[in-house]
Amino acid sequence: MTKVFDAPEDFAATALAGFCAAHRDRVAAVPHGAVRAAPGAKDKVALVVGGGSGHYPAFLGYVGAGLADAAVAGDVFASPATSAVATVARAANRGGGVILGFGNYAGDVLNFGAAARRLQDEGIDARILAVTDDVASAPADQRDKRRGVAGDLLVFKIAGAAAEEGRDIDAVDAVARAANAATVSFGVAFDGCTLPGQVAPLFTVEAGAVALGLGIHGEPGIRTEAMLPAADLARMLLAPLLAERPDGHDGRVAVVLNGLGATKYEELFVLWHHIAGRLEAEGLTVVEPEVGEFVTSLDMAGCSLSITWLDDDLERLWRAPADAPAFRKGVVQRGIAEAPVVEEASQAIATGSPASQKTAGCIVTLMERLADALAEAEEMLGRIDAQAGDGDHGQGMARGSRAAAGAARQAADAGAGAATTLGLAGDAWADRAGGTSGALWGVALRAWAAALGDAQEGDAQAVADGAAAAQKAITDLGGARVGDKTLVDALVPFVETLRAEVKAGHPLAEAWAKAATDATAAAEATAGLLPRLGRARPLAERSLGHPDAGAISLALCARVVGEELSAR
Amino acid sequence: MTKVFDAPEDFAATALAGFCAAHRDRVAAVPHGAVRAAPGAKDKVALVVGGGSGHYPAFLGYVGAGLADAAVAGDVFASPATSAVATVARAANRGGGVILGFGNYAGDVLNFGAAARRLQDEGIDARILAVTDDVASAPADQRDKRRGVAGDLLVFKIAGAAAEEGRDIDAVDAVARAANAATVSFGVAFDGCTLPGQVAPLFTVEAGAVALGLGIHGEPGIRTEAMLPAADLARMLLAPLLAERPDGHDGRVAVVLNGLGATKYEELFVLWHHIAGRLEAEGLTVVEPEVGEFVTSLDMAGCSLSITWLDDDLERLWRAPADAPAFRKGVVQRGIAEAPVVEEASQAIATGSPASQKTAGCIVTLMERLADALAEAEEMLGRIDAQAGDGDHGQGMARGSRAAAGAARQAADAGAGAATTLGLAGDAWADRAGGTSGALWGVALRAWAAALGDAQEGDAQAVADGAAAAQKAITDLGGARVGDKTLVDALVPFVETLRAEVKAGHPLAEAWAKAATDATAAAEATAGLLPRLGRARPLAERSLGHPDAGAISLALCARVVGEELSAR
Repeated sequence: MTKVFDAPEDFAATALAGFCAAHRDRVAAVPHGAVRAAPGAKDKVALVVGGGSGHYPAFLGYVGAGLADAAVAGDVFASPATSAVATVARAANRGGGVILGFGNYAGDVLNFGAAARRLQDEGIDARILAVTDDVASAPADQRDKRRGVAGDLLVFKIAGAAAEEGRDIDAVDAVARAANAATVSFGVAFDGCTLPGQVAPLFTVEAGAVALGLGIHGEPGIRTEAMLPAADLARMLLAPLLAERPDGHDGRVAVVLNGLGATKYEELFVLWHHIAGRLEAEGLTVVEPEVGEFVTSLDMAGCSLSITWLDDDLERLWRAPADAPAFRKGVVQRGIAEAPVVEEASQAIATGSPASQKTAGCIVTLMERLADALAEAEEMLGRIDAQAGDGDHGQGMARGSRAAAGAARQAADAGAGAATTLGLAGDAWADRAGGTSGALWGVALRAWAAALGDAQEGDAQAVADGAAAAQKAITDLGGARVGDKTLVDALVPFVETLRAEVKAGHPLAEAWAKAATDATAAAEATAGLLPRLGRARPLAERSLGHPDAGAISLALCARVVGEELSAR
Repeated sequence: MTKVFDAPEDFAATALAGFCAAHRDRVAAVPHGAVRAAPGAKDKVALVVGGGSGHYPAFLGYVGAGLADAAVAGDVFASPATSAVATVARAANRGGGVILGFGNYAGDVLNFGAAARRLQDEGIDARILAVTDDVASAPADQRDKRRGVAGDLLVFKIAGAAAEEGRDIDAVDAVARAANAATVSFGVAFDGCTLPGQVAPLFTVEAGAVALGLGIHGEPGIRTEAMLPAADLARMLLAPLLAERPDGHDGRVAVVLNGLGATKYEELFVLWHHIAGRLEAEGLTVVEPEVGEFVTSLDMAGCSLSITWLDDDLERLWRAPADAPAFRKGVVQRGIAEAPVVEEASQAIATGSPASQKTAGCIVTLMERLADALAEAEEMLGRIDAQAGDGDHGQGMARGSRAAAGAARQAADAGAGAATTLGLAGDAWADRAGGTSGALWGVALRAWAAALGDAQEGDAQAVADGAAAAQKAITDLGGARVGDKTLVDALVPFVETLRAEVKAGHPLAEAWAKAATDATAAAEATAGLLPRLGRARPLAERSLGHPDAGAISLALCARVVGEELSAR
């Protein structure tokens, strides 16, 4: 289990600081990540990779010549916030466009996707590259639903080499997609991992058993079997990968055998002895294999095998030199270190109309009430979330709402109107909460803000319109529908009731109170649902009989705001 | 725990094969180890490092330009045999002499020391370099009693750089000793590790506790405390190292923060954040720190901090480029790969006199009986050994005696006399058993063989003289005395009784039977003793009430031989 930390919530940020201190000759710290100390050539395409912390060498260990230009580090097992991705990408941008690479997980898709749109709005040609190599997570004909695991290294290495040799962004994008399409991984787990500050593992594997295809955060696998000798394990890891050998492929493969944390080097070498023999027996030619730790999962026990089916171009790019803290290949001459230019997003605050400033003042009070209520509810929400997830929902909501309240106060004090105040609150929420819920609350508040504007006092109709816009933003971004056991289950009845009551001419406080009641009932009813996409099958089943934490926290927020409105 | 293996006894050898397969562009396999694929310059001093397996990157991961020329891999946590060290060293020798580097453990001191003597006899200038960095294992004024831990990396790196730049063996030897004298380490453990095939850990650390100074195989530490936040852990790791800052030292230090296996990268970075701050506060200048896994201990949880107090020469050598599978620094141009020349020691078998051939036949029968008896006793001996050690004694004895019987049979079939037959049996025993007991049984049988000669039939007096010679060889090599709870406790009464009975004119079978009875009583009486040097204090105390496995196996062998002699 994770033993070395101070306050658990500071773990990822302190680890990032320590990483940058240890590798200061190779990387430079920027907010939420690291960039190369010696940047690539001007107009080079920048490869920016990232995801949750807890997977080192992924992603910080990949920053260096021939590989990534920068990495963004989220909290442990949580996607970095949209603004974090955008900040790091801006620092890495050399003028040739940016490719944002990440493993295909919901929170990362949300945040890297939103960051790409932000960068595009700023005139930076930003593309996203979601790695989808895990064959256990979806069938071959649903390739885009597959999770990203240790294939990250293969895909990023190839993309990084293409960028390094000066290809333009269309060419790098194309070869990165080709590398991803040619890369398959399969993993086995022997035991779960424990988050900093937790005493029980996030998930477990039965003693003496091996879980096939279990994800690196405990996502659903294929089946569990009794532990096998290494020779049989090698066969079992290879079978699903060989089954996806492209028709007519000549057999040249790049191969990565990856340890997840507690499965150590000599065990990997024992396994490699058998895998190498079987690959040869299959007529495959292994090109520069890698055996070690490349994408870990804290102290999880297990390993994964990844294969990239090479063609001439992919082979050349895989063999190309690279020089990153945790991955070196061939010989790279070191460049000259430069201090990175970090443009922290900062916005001049537009002054609102007096009427809108009044609404902004009300928003500040509401956000502060929310932050207090969510701080109080943090542990309760964490307990509910732990039934089906990693138990960090309470922490994220508390952190996000506190940051939002602070940002709202700052904006209002500077004379902002309602839209600016609520929009900045939403940005702060997303940035500090991180993960999926942070991204969803961020876009929801931003959308709601737009409906309020900075000119008029927010009336009931504007508030109801905002609620509808928030709902649309959340379902557009997250893709969940009613019945999926997410916050959408509480959000939809809330918005429907609010709009209907406002349309019927009821005052806002009354309309809101009724909507909050409906949201609460709907949130509690999620106890009867099974999540559509459980983190891990056993956890999903355990969640039956418990409501969804996201729906509960949304209903709680609705009630708190309702009480405040009624008291006015 | 260790999960990936086939037969546990093949673990280290299969891991070695897998390592060589994974890194075939950098290393070439030789029996019991690996050498650089592209050897160093002719007449370069060769640095050959090694020790037990289970510590990767130590020692195989260090083979490469600017670091080691070769590494020898013993069984898990067991010293490689003398002949293994000699074989690998011969393959690495470029004509400039060989430095044999290892951590300061009894088995390694025995086997690397004996290998150095063998190489010297062959005209190779061989020196030994025992790394003694662990401040927890002995006070500063008994530096040579300290164990070797992650300081291995610092000392080997500096010695390797000196050899690479072409210094002669006296100069490399001198700077290696200076590096060792300037290097201190201190470690903490959070949990023990589990050997391949075992279900319980080799040792444990209480849940929620941190064991200070516990060795990487569970050797005695200083004390146990409640687990601390990372900032306090940093202070605790640094204090004993700073206490040994040399008078007037200018503060330049090379630093290695090493994870033991299950304590992962982000945890090490969190710790490094605090350590780097404290080093700066102490006015120290950190030169190219290393934070990661360098000397592991299977899946042990914990970490160690090592400091080398640099001068100009040590700093230059620490900064010099290196290019090994698990350790790279700066830029090294790759050399040209060559197939290594491996001179496996092979001896022409001298024909003995007919009388001595008859004794040789008797020796073959006795060795085969011993091998059968030790195979049967393997589990029992393992159980006894686990009370105070790592539980591998039964396995080593079974493996050694079986190899000895095979070698004896081969020699006798080729017409060898008694001395040659028993000597080759002893060599085979040492080679296959490995570890401390293998080395001791090897020298004992060799010494005994010399007393028998290849000319006469072995009479009672020759056998008794051989027993005395074997006892001297064992105490000379191992340094143990009666009362230390080792096999010497059974050996000394056995030899005394045998010699006295033979001197009194009793027939050999009778004399031997009486000696065996005394050995058995003495072996059983070791249950009342505490080992002088327990592997770990808690284990040493647990051993009270249990006899010593080495003494028991010696008495068992004495009884088995006695029964066979009586039956003739």
